[in-house]
Amino acid sequence: MNTEKPLTLPALDPADVPRRTGSIYPTEELRSLTQGRSKQALGDALGLQAFGVNLVRLEPGAMSAVRHWHTRQDEFIYVLEGELTLVTENGEQVLGAGVCAGFPAGKPDGHQLINRSERVAIYLEVGDRLPGDAAHYPDVDLEARATRGGYSFFKKDGAPYEAASG
Amino acid sequence: MNTEKPLTLPALDPADVPRRTGSIYPTEELRSLTQGRSKQALGDALGLQAFGVNLVRLEPGAMSAVRHWHTRQDEFIYVLEGELTLVTENGEQVLGAGVCAGFPAGKPDGHQLINRSERVAIYLEVGDRLPGDAAHYPDVDLEARATRGGYSFFKKDGAPYEAASG
Repeated sequence: MNTEKPLTLPALDPADVPRRTGSIYPTEELRSLTQGRSKQALGDALGLQAFGVNLVRLEPGAMSAVRHWHTRQDEFIYVLEGELTLVTENGEQVLGAGVCAGFPAGKPDGHQLINRSERVAIYLEVGDRLPGDAAHYPDVDLEARATRGGYSFFKKDGAPYEAASG
Repeated sequence: MNTEKPLTLPALDPADVPRRTGSIYPTEELRSLTQGRSKQALGDALGLQAFGVNLVRLEPGAMSAVRHWHTRQDEFIYVLEGELTLVTENGEQVLGAGVCAGFPAGKPDGHQLINRSERVAIYLEVGDRLPGDAAHYPDVDLEARATRGGYSFFKKDGAPYEAASG
């Protein structure tokens, strides 16, 4: 990006932020669904606490997450590069660079982004950190409840999965 | 932006969001400082409440705001096009496209963005909406206190400015 002079906080070049792969989903099968996804936690690197901001990169074929919706967390995404397919209850839409989407807390419309294109797609995602959040996953036997600093996962009958790290 | 097919919520083409100019600053002198600035409230258009997301456009010479910092609100910006000068207590840095900055709540480092270039600059700004926020302006006789849906402005001696609309 622009690196003529090294930037210092409160400015930040995302290239200087570690890229995180992997997933906190509780089963290998679920974790495998996010292969090809990496995230850079820009908000954390900047010392922000009220909301998270991630720069997310999806390789061709990768997805943002299993289709889900949050009870308390507002989510926002803005496409920076490439093309993403947004999947919701109402079907699919293709989002190009410069397009955004938003998922208000409590709206029971499970959503995910899938890179069905032949090239990398990059977007910003923002989510607040109000306490008491839960996430519902209409397509799989999974529920999430916010903990301090993460989520715990349960089956739909309430049985816990083993604690996930991260 | 990408408009092959009209997008429907929860997706949104920013081109469909009204562009707001003007300022809620309480004096004509202060308001004139934000000439050449326009904002599109993407988060509001998407129904988000926990945080605001604006797509901001600064004409050459325009500034984001009078230099300020917030007591409760985290702020984040991401440069999409052009070049912006970030002014803080520690001086100036030039931010190009793909670079971000963050201003944690309560950190007393007044900041602003100025477009000192010859072309338009565009960035995303995100700020949470936790109650009880105030803003401090080190360079001018101004203080702001959050109200329901906006800010009220005061001089540094506590005397109120007339209520601003917006």
